[in-house]
Amino acid sequence: MARNLTLAAAQLGPIQKAEGRDVVVGRLVRLMETARKRGAEVVVFPELALTTFFPRWYEEDIAKAEHWFETAMPSNETAPLFEAARKYGIGFHLGYAEIAHEADEAGQVRKRRFNTAIYVHPTGEVVLKYRKVHLPGHAEFDPRRKVQHLEKRYFEVGNLGFPVVRAPIGQAGPVNIGMMICNDRRWPEAWRVMGLQQVELVMLGYNTPSINQDAKGFEAHHLRVLHSHLSIQAGCYQNACFGAGVAKAGVEDGCELFGHSIIVNPQGEIMAQATSWDDELIVADCNLDQCTLGRTSIFNFAAHRRPEAYGRIVEQVGSVAPPEWQPAARAAE
Amino acid sequence: MARNLTLAAAQLGPIQKAEGRDVVVGRLVRLMETARKRGAEVVVFPELALTTFFPRWYEEDIAKAEHWFETAMPSNETAPLFEAARKYGIGFHLGYAEIAHEADEAGQVRKRRFNTAIYVHPTGEVVLKYRKVHLPGHAEFDPRRKVQHLEKRYFEVGNLGFPVVRAPIGQAGPVNIGMMICNDRRWPEAWRVMGLQQVELVMLGYNTPSINQDAKGFEAHHLRVLHSHLSIQAGCYQNACFGAGVAKAGVEDGCELFGHSIIVNPQGEIMAQATSWDDELIVADCNLDQCTLGRTSIFNFAAHRRPEAYGRIVEQVGSVAPPEWQPAARAAE
Repeated sequence: MARNLTLAAAQLGPIQKAEGRDVVVGRLVRLMETARKRGAEVVVFPELALTTFFPRWYEEDIAKAEHWFETAMPSNETAPLFEAARKYGIGFHLGYAEIAHEADEAGQVRKRRFNTAIYVHPTGEVVLKYRKVHLPGHAEFDPRRKVQHLEKRYFEVGNLGFPVVRAPIGQAGPVNIGMMICNDRRWPEAWRVMGLQQVELVMLGYNTPSINQDAKGFEAHHLRVLHSHLSIQAGCYQNACFGAGVAKAGVEDGCELFGHSIIVNPQGEIMAQATSWDDELIVADCNLDQCTLGRTSIFNFAAHRRPEAYGRIVEQVGSVAPPEWQPAARAAE
Repeated sequence: MARNLTLAAAQLGPIQKAEGRDVVVGRLVRLMETARKRGAEVVVFPELALTTFFPRWYEEDIAKAEHWFETAMPSNETAPLFEAARKYGIGFHLGYAEIAHEADEAGQVRKRRFNTAIYVHPTGEVVLKYRKVHLPGHAEFDPRRKVQHLEKRYFEVGNLGFPVVRAPIGQAGPVNIGMMICNDRRWPEAWRVMGLQQVELVMLGYNTPSINQDAKGFEAHHLRVLHSHLSIQAGCYQNACFGAGVAKAGVEDGCELFGHSIIVNPQGEIMAQATSWDDELIVADCNLDQCTLGRTSIFNFAAHRRPEAYGRIVEQVGSVAPPEWQPAARAAE
């Protein structure tokens, strides 16, 4: 019997700076109601789905940004979402800013901030937590930028790796699920680390501006969506998994986010795409048995990978200049 | 001043089993003449560009396949290509089957066979050699396959890594060049290892059948070109480099090769595409300064990569099953 999963991606329109969590959670619950009507078994919400994308706002005193963070999950404000999941029997993926009091690398317990995502079982239990590894942007106020991108200021690098877990979702039975967040999707390393754990479904949320402020004429604006889709489609194809890439979209705090959420199959094909800049639910029937073909043929890792040639991937962080070619005539001088 | 390189990709139509190297080299020289008329400074020929894609033919005695290999480069038969390069001042990339007498890992000098590519300076000097790392297919005759794919029989895994070298090409001045071959392009590890060496131009040839014999109804035929393009476009985008993916195309020994050679820029855009299944030259003007944007912003590796999370990429060859989720209720039992 085919392992079918009815998967929903719940794109969000903008969440303005002044919008309260109660309003946002109401929108999430309505999207979950729609998901139920469409027969979905799991709903994927975006990155930082409870607030505006606050890393665009600079605070000299980071403590003043803490009202954007969650200290408990669920909380009074997010409880209705967990209730809706229970009521409808739908699992969900949620991105949010997390404050945790836990030990750091030096073993010292302290307040830590992460860009986090969780997958929640319909019972309300957190099945899997992920903290964003590839933080883009910068840590200090950048006067050259019209809009700041302060993820490196507000968040620590995620310390949970790229975990995959096998958990029951809907009628499909156990599914190997993994998560990444926004900029992670552009890094094939993240996809591969999960592929090496036989991931079947990657859930990922993003908040990506329509304008690349670094581009300065070297990148046509319309390529932003191509780059996002290219990364997700290649990641799914090369790791034989499904992917749900789910955006916050539209004009938020005056900054345009490009949306275009997609669900992708292990062939790299787009199965469903959001085309509004508003709250929008897209659904696809995912036959998880489709993950088998790639994993057992072209991307049979055990048969074809050659880690002895991949050393630089872990031995280097940045790139290094290659050697100069020495023509025989010059070399002989 | 912009660093402009006029790059040509020389797709080849089929080379039938009975076709001699002299005929093939004549075709290559004519393509080089065309390249000269179009103002190209470098021409990229495909994988195994001197013969039919012979790994589709089984030989019980591997020695009987040796007539498909080159023992010297240049040879009497390939000399006209080197002469044309010198005459026209054009560098070229050529894929061929190589027999080398050299030491193996155990230090023993013996006859070794590789699927090889070289980049040759207009002076005739070999600037860079690469031997294919990701050999697809199988080592023994497979009675279930209508067409064999015996790369793992006829070739050893390449032992040169993924080298990049900085060498003068045309008017652009020194260019960081690297190479991969056919199936390598589907492996983001190969692209990244070269990206970590600041590669600006990846030259890659391929011989890819239109039909995936392993697919058995799980993969629509038209997706074969998507998969090839997706891999090259994502590789170029994620490593901020140009790529020339050059096919042997058409019906060769009764087996259809899909062609669709492309030149791709660091934005992942297709700049030129072959649409015939014949000898066909495509040309693009590559502004190598376009490599800078990605390398200094989104893909500033030093600023954003997190190798501590990538360990599995080199620590594992094959994939491993993820742990099963233990619900709290069950875990407490």
